[in-house]
Amino acid sequence: MTDHVAVRRVTLSRHERSVPERIAESVLSGAGRGSDPEEFGRWLTGLGRHMYTRAGRVPLDELAGWRVDRTTGNVAHRSGKFFTVEGLEVHMPQAKVPRWDQPIINQPEVGILGILVKNFDGVLHCLMQAKAEPGNCNGLQLSPTVQATRSNYTRVHSGKSVPYLDFFRTSAPHRVLVDVRQSEQGSWFYRKRNRNMVIETTDEVPLEDGFCWLTLGEVHRLLAVDNLVNVDARTVLSCLPFAGAAAGTAYGPPRDAFHAALIASLGTERSALHTDGQILSWITDIRTRTDVHARRIPLNRLRGWRHADGRIAHESGLFFDVIGVDVTAGGREVGHWMQPMIEPVGQGLLAFVVKNVDGVLHVLVQARAEPGLVDVVELAPTVQCTLANYQRLPGSAWPRFLPEVLGAEPDQIRFDTILSEEGGRFYHARNRYLVVEAKPGFRGEHPDFRWLTLHQLAGLLRHSYYLNIQARSLVACLHSLCAEAAPAGPAG
Amino acid sequence: MTDHVAVRRVTLSRHERSVPERIAESVLSGAGRGSDPEEFGRWLTGLGRHMYTRAGRVPLDELAGWRVDRTTGNVAHRSGKFFTVEGLEVHMPQAKVPRWDQPIINQPEVGILGILVKNFDGVLHCLMQAKAEPGNCNGLQLSPTVQATRSNYTRVHSGKSVPYLDFFRTSAPHRVLVDVRQSEQGSWFYRKRNRNMVIETTDEVPLEDGFCWLTLGEVHRLLAVDNLVNVDARTVLSCLPFAGAAAGTAYGPPRDAFHAALIASLGTERSALHTDGQILSWITDIRTRTDVHARRIPLNRLRGWRHADGRIAHESGLFFDVIGVDVTAGGREVGHWMQPMIEPVGQGLLAFVVKNVDGVLHVLVQARAEPGLVDVVELAPTVQCTLANYQRLPGSAWPRFLPEVLGAEPDQIRFDTILSEEGGRFYHARNRYLVVEAKPGFRGEHPDFRWLTLHQLAGLLRHSYYLNIQARSLVACLHSLCAEAAPAGPAG
Repeated sequence: MTDHVAVRRVTLSRHERSVPERIAESVLSGAGRGSDPEEFGRWLTGLGRHMYTRAGRVPLDELAGWRVDRTTGNVAHRSGKFFTVEGLEVHMPQAKVPRWDQPIINQPEVGILGILVKNFDGVLHCLMQAKAEPGNCNGLQLSPTVQATRSNYTRVHSGKSVPYLDFFRTSAPHRVLVDVRQSEQGSWFYRKRNRNMVIETTDEVPLEDGFCWLTLGEVHRLLAVDNLVNVDARTVLSCLPFAGAAAGTAYGPPRDAFHAALIASLGTERSALHTDGQILSWITDIRTRTDVHARRIPLNRLRGWRHADGRIAHESGLFFDVIGVDVTAGGREVGHWMQPMIEPVGQGLLAFVVKNVDGVLHVLVQARAEPGLVDVVELAPTVQCTLANYQRLPGSAWPRFLPEVLGAEPDQIRFDTILSEEGGRFYHARNRYLVVEAKPGFRGEHPDFRWLTLHQLAGLLRHSYYLNIQARSLVACLHSLCAEAAPAGPAG
Repeated sequence: MTDHVAVRRVTLSRHERSVPERIAESVLSGAGRGSDPEEFGRWLTGLGRHMYTRAGRVPLDELAGWRVDRTTGNVAHRSGKFFTVEGLEVHMPQAKVPRWDQPIINQPEVGILGILVKNFDGVLHCLMQAKAEPGNCNGLQLSPTVQATRSNYTRVHSGKSVPYLDFFRTSAPHRVLVDVRQSEQGSWFYRKRNRNMVIETTDEVPLEDGFCWLTLGEVHRLLAVDNLVNVDARTVLSCLPFAGAAAGTAYGPPRDAFHAALIASLGTERSALHTDGQILSWITDIRTRTDVHARRIPLNRLRGWRHADGRIAHESGLFFDVIGVDVTAGGREVGHWMQPMIEPVGQGLLAFVVKNVDGVLHVLVQARAEPGLVDVVELAPTVQCTLANYQRLPGSAWPRFLPEVLGAEPDQIRFDTILSEEGGRFYHARNRYLVVEAKPGFRGEHPDFRWLTLHQLAGLLRHSYYLNIQARSLVACLHSLCAEAAPAGPAG
């Protein structure tokens, strides 16, 4: 985010390639296991025989190790660790629905989501992990090198249980490409944040079972496969500094006007519709004017919710349930446990509407308040909703710009994949991720929406709490369209 | 904060001067009332005859319009408006003093602090206001154009009571130079923030009584006068985009090595000790590792504090008292009121230690946790303390780098003025603001401290909650040293 300052290249020796240049090379490079979906699939299937989780349903009141508080109804682990399920009373005076109650997961600690990267034959590779989580609908998903809770990474005598954690605990000898706290789902988590990190090393890195080195090009190809690249990987990847004129040229000759506009949007040579200062002022204005009153209350005092049949559900059957699961796992330290989870009702829809403005792709982002966010409002996808919640309502109650997304022609759709949310807390939570190019003449003007370039989004992503987790996932999806080759679906 | 992206100049037509260039011109320009301290003093004295506040002490329990809650002891206005004085229970496990209780002011709304600027004869002028506040030790101080609470700026039928407010409520037709929410004192306020704005207009602006147009050079000269430029003006001025090579050249030939390094520090041509990415990673690391547990509790349950003789004070006599005042005012809408205030014990010391590193001035900032901050830790002055609190303690308990500041020789001291804190909530709260050039060989190395350039501080100041209010004041003081002329004291 710069509109008046010149570039500083503090770290670069004359002959070293910049980080954005090396990112571009990695995006264009596909030579390993991830380039051949069939071979990758065989590797994953092989791993799945000893790395798995199986989750069966158990009533919330019968979760071994957990306690439902008699007074409050809150669900907490007997050790006091992990997380609690509590109630939240929400009041947003300016919103369409100004008051509601809901259950929420309270897990105030900041975890680490980290990807270790290293040059092989001059090309940046990411150390990715195949990881099974109880909420995954399909067993293993591709995850960051490290997903560590705070108790993992602060204990002094660590190092055994979480592989590669030391690269992220003491980054000093390594190079930091990304290091920023970002929010998690503000509708399901109360003020949960994770530290997103990308660390580059030149050390020898032994390859543990279940891990593999992939170029960014390979990860991008896998991102087009349903439910494969997990949300933690997507949010970390979204923070990578894709940028710059030098990097732009490295993406090669554009394959069409959309691709050319996408690459131009990463750089700074061409104009954005709004200056960075105007964008920041818009965010400041909305954050100042929007009231979000979120008060934690006992889980058994929620209006509109019922604890019955071993789960907590809304009277309407909409939104989500709090359920209990009994988990059997292979290939993990602990082979059996129980826990509460959130199970959403219906699949979500997350869409960026994008537009080519004078050769520069712009993304229509929405300033959206969510009760669990730390700072009132973050930038969200153009459309972020669960269709099931609106099916009984008239069109006037629908989210803005939903008709434009649902009515898109096939040639407007640039990305369309179903991806999963965090499988450690959410049970079979899936969203359809869409990038839709606007029809000519679409203006998308509304006080809560703005058109930003990818370069502007990258500037915001260096700081905490500007883009919500759904928008960050979609930024990673957009980046996956940067390679010259036509975007590859599961069939390549 | 950019280390890999090139400059974007979206707003600039070919012949328009950049904002930093115009800021530099305004810094160098002094032609009006503010250039002659004697004339300015006569104007202020004249105003003081009908614009004043007189504050007498009243016991807290006898404040008309306020109520001391029987159960909690909290002090609140009977209307529910303004602010409340409550208790805070603090637990910072990693701090030298890990647990304490204290009173705190709770005022969750976001106010506007705004300076209106306009070109006269091609030079940027700031519309400054002479404003009396009950806590001021000296009557009138120089304030921003607007200091408005939220109830001022959100009411639909406003415009009468706060002059010039409309420029800030609907900035659309004007140019936004600064618009960012920043924190207030984290030791006295619970999560208080204000929206800092600088708006440029080309409209005709009628000059109301008590207001005057000053160039930045004039404001800077007045900043060297004790207790004249108020804290709200200082924080807004600190956010101005001083920057850039073009601006650097406009400051003219340097008068000495310090001045040359100061100007170089505003720009990006010369290297910083740390990249922006390293600075952000350092802040992320500290914010992730530092625990601040601050819980609001009833004011009458504070350990170590006593409500007696009409005030609340710490048993040791240190820190601050909560007092009541009876205010008579001239030149304001309301001529008489009562209110609680915080009265600090003793004068504070706020110092930036600065160092010329290969021709670029670097500022030693401290990552400092305060219980009322929204985001754990902000960057603070090198030394931020009240000397009285340490006089009975051994040197080992003193704040780090305090000996270096107290032992500075006269030729190391580049700025030294006593300035006031917010006179609407704090009674006679004064701090000595110092900029001290480090002795050769001083390294200032410590995990909680880093050397930053002014350009890097400016990048952080575009976003919320990176610099605390004391550090922002000192940034404004450093900017005041940019003019070619020798820094002027009261005798100029």
